[in-house]
Amino acid sequence: MQNNNQPVVKLICKPENLLKTIYTACRTCYSADSPVNIYENATDEEKMLKLIERVISSGHYSTIEHIQVTFAISNISRACTHQLVRHRHMSFSQKSQRYVKEKGQFDYLTPPTIEKNPELLKKYNEFMELTSKFYVEMTEAGIPAEDARFILPNAAASSIVASLNLRELIHLANIRLCTRAQDEIRLMVRKMCDELTKEEPWLKKYLLPKCEKLGYCDEDKCCGRKQKKEEFLGALKV
Amino acid sequence: MQNNNQPVVKLICKPENLLKTIYTACRTCYSADSPVNIYENATDEEKMLKLIERVISSGHYSTIEHIQVTFAISNISRACTHQLVRHRHMSFSQKSQRYVKEKGQFDYLTPPTIEKNPELLKKYNEFMELTSKFYVEMTEAGIPAEDARFILPNAAASSIVASLNLRELIHLANIRLCTRAQDEIRLMVRKMCDELTKEEPWLKKYLLPKCEKLGYCDEDKCCGRKQKKEEFLGALKV
Amino acid sequence: MQNNNQPVVKLICKPENLLKTIYTACRTCYSADSPVNIYENATDEEKMLKLIERVISSGHYSTIEHIQVTFAISNISRACTHQLVRHRHMSFSQKSQRYVKEKGQFDYLTPPTIEKNPELLKKYNEFMELTSKFYVEMTEAGIPAEDARFILPNAAASSIVASLNLRELIHLANIRLCTRAQDEIRLMVRKMCDELTKEEPWLKKYLLPKCEKLGYCDEDKCCGRKQKKEEFLGALKV
Amino acid sequence: MQNNNQPVVKLICKPENLLKTIYTACRTCYSADSPVNIYENATDEEKMLKLIERVISSGHYSTIEHIQVTFAISNISRACTHQLVRHRHMSFSQKSQRYVKEKGQFDYLTPPTIEKNPELLKKYNEFMELTSKFYVEMTEAGIPAEDARFILPNAAASSIVASLNLRELIHLANIRLCTRAQDEIRLMVRKMCDELTKEEPWLKKYLLPKCEKLGYCDEDKCCGRKQKKEEFLGALKV
Repeated sequence: MQNNNQPVVKLICKPENLLKTIYTACRTCYSADSPVNIYENATDEEKMLKLIERVISSGHYSTIEHIQVTFAISNISRACTHQLVRHRHMSFSQKSQRYVKEKGQFDYLTPPTIEKNPELLKKYNEFMELTSKFYVEMTEAGIPAEDARFILPNAAASSIVASLNLRELIHLANIRLCTRAQDEIRLMVRKMCDELTKEEPWLKKYLLPKCEKLGYCDEDKCCGRKQKKEEFLGALKV
Repeated sequence: MQNNNQPVVKLICKPENLLKTIYTACRTCYSADSPVNIYENATDEEKMLKLIERVISSGHYSTIEHIQVTFAISNISRACTHQLVRHRHMSFSQKSQRYVKEKGQFDYLTPPTIEKNPELLKKYNEFMELTSKFYVEMTEAGIPAEDARFILPNAAASSIVASLNLRELIHLANIRLCTRAQDEIRLMVRKMCDELTKEEPWLKKYLLPKCEKLGYCDEDKCCGRKQKKEEFLGALKV
Repeated sequence: MQNNNQPVVKLICKPENLLKTIYTACRTCYSADSPVNIYENATDEEKMLKLIERVISSGHYSTIEHIQVTFAISNISRACTHQLVRHRHMSFSQKSQRYVKEKGQFDYLTPPTIEKNPELLKKYNEFMELTSKFYVEMTEAGIPAEDARFILPNAAASSIVASLNLRELIHLANIRLCTRAQDEIRLMVRKMCDELTKEEPWLKKYLLPKCEKLGYCDEDKCCGRKQKKEEFLGALKV
Repeated sequence: MQNNNQPVVKLICKPENLLKTIYTACRTCYSADSPVNIYENATDEEKMLKLIERVISSGHYSTIEHIQVTFAISNISRACTHQLVRHRHMSFSQKSQRYVKEKGQFDYLTPPTIEKNPELLKKYNEFMELTSKFYVEMTEAGIPAEDARFILPNAAASSIVASLNLRELIHLANIRLCTRAQDEIRLMVRKMCDELTKEEPWLKKYLLPKCEKLGYCDEDKCCGRKQKKEEFLGALKV
């Protein structure tokens, strides 16, 4: 079945005392007090936030590594998961094409450029149908799923459980919210950020493409949202 | 002030839905169902535990990386934290000797072998007093804390906030509960494990020295708790 | 073009003074001498090897992290690279399907189970031809390579440059030379190990499936090469 | 013996075909050619450098992870190594105070602020002498080195073998060449960079404090070398 091309993203795991934990980490570095005492006396949320924001702003990200969050993600292509799993500071559990045999038409994603072209879209859908039939023919002939999957396309939908700490989430946003990233992973990371900032709105200002953080664009090809680094730094000197 | 030589360890951060999250990760790998559905339908705790234990037993530890826990630790020596921070899959926030100036007698730890020797213990305590006085003399003369700390000993007490996932905690236990580890870090890791198993008793069977996991000892020098690898594997061949 | 199904693996980067570097690392831990002196006086290869083997045998693998090696790999499926890049202690540079447009028939791999079935093999090759034609049709119609690749199968051949240190290589061998690993990655890792042991034969005894290291099999499903852990440890108790 | 306060740093391991390896990694991403072919045909050093510099400049640092270098370092304080080992993408082998017993006066470092104060310096040296005597007294009384070391100060000299890839070396330089870093580690990292750029001068432009890379300072306290981020970006808007 062709599906609606929208990644499904749900935040399933986040510690309750997120702010208190980060605050305790920040204060432990600069305090004669013990972390247990700091933790137990931390009650003023506004004060905590203020310290945390000052620490993050000066680039001391290690303090936010103490918070890890977990997302349940589905309806994304294998093309997208191949990009995602290249982030080596994350933990993943992905639906296995070796062990999970597709029974009818497998789910798949369709890139917007193809969706907009009715003729190609029709052929694309037929191609997926044909692929599915050949897959089923092979598995029915005794080819194991781990080998039959060799014909499954990058478009095939996958599911993945992904965990990462806040430092890595900010990095992921910096890299993958950039317009140089592919549509699908950009949308997926956008949804991950939205899921979290619904509950932790103070994080919004950090979950941005890198150009917003830097003040300029350091990519080879620039989308124009910010000036290119060379121009920006050059412009300033004038 | 000399202190009681016992590390203070408190578990300050742990996700509430620990089992459900690991179960969702395990099932996602082998299921056609989406992780969101798996998560929402996970209610039978016994069934969840059974799957999780089977997955861990076959060595697929990546599924338990999804859970990270945080400990507030104090009253441990700098000798001990220098060992702890060598574990590179952990996140740390440690009391800084550069920024936190000691004002009176700094806290310090005393190794059991010195505690048992009254004559040396007396000298040890006098040495710490003398060190403290020279430290204060230097800081009062304008030497910054980051330089005055050059005379502070490995015995000086430190505080640290440490986060790690369950896979790394099992590894830490395997390595540091071994009798080859130094007393202080062994006791600290013991307390970390106890703090967690109070709430998650099913983890007890994994938080063991490595010889209990392997069935034999692979260290160069063996404490005798288990047979040495060569002897054990040799013995079996007979 | 269908190809010969054999991964191409070449060791392209390895430090010349591999043994001396590891030896210096091992000795630095236990010596009052400086590492520069240790390094400059290290000449007796046999003595170096003897120390290194003793250190590795007692599980102190950090000393061999100092050596990193690089392999140029091609003619492997995207299915295989998706498995490979899950090893997070490695560095990768992979041929991009976003930026490299396939011009004629793309290279692809064929699983042995399909190769052995002449009827399915014919259909498999026709399927790849058809896929290639549709890919070219789409790119000629203006669909960018990064979207046209959604129809490319797991079978599509890829190229990758992969670097890892000796500790991770031993781990990779332990996991991927196990018969539970899929044929293709097992063969590829076998070739990586062979490329290196041609030059460093002393490493052979460490580049083994994990059951050879442990003395037993800890997998859920066992190939029979070694006894299962439960049986093995049980047997011994009798 | 008091020593000359200069870290000893020697580059002991670096692959010979450094440029060719990075070039092969860069080209593999964007080429239909196999990495083995790319490698074997890479001869034009100027062309290689040009591509590599363009890739690094657009922030794609993963390509330089393929090169790892190793430094033998001695005559640095334990204060300094405690900072160094916090870099978790490095590999370390450090002289152990548990296993290496100090026999006479241990080596130690002296911070410049103390060196400049003759009165304090005299007391500092006497303090080190006294510490050494008590250490020897304890070990002669049967206290094991691992416990006697509790009195050894942060000033005690250590040796360490450290390996890291070029991406991490650039990061290390960005962080530790900043004037906010402590003198000793700044000098040590400076020497590491110098050792490497003697042989690979093209790396000079990347081995800089982070403000040189960013165009501004993002630290909380700024040394004035560059404008603070807020002022810099603010200034530009006007």
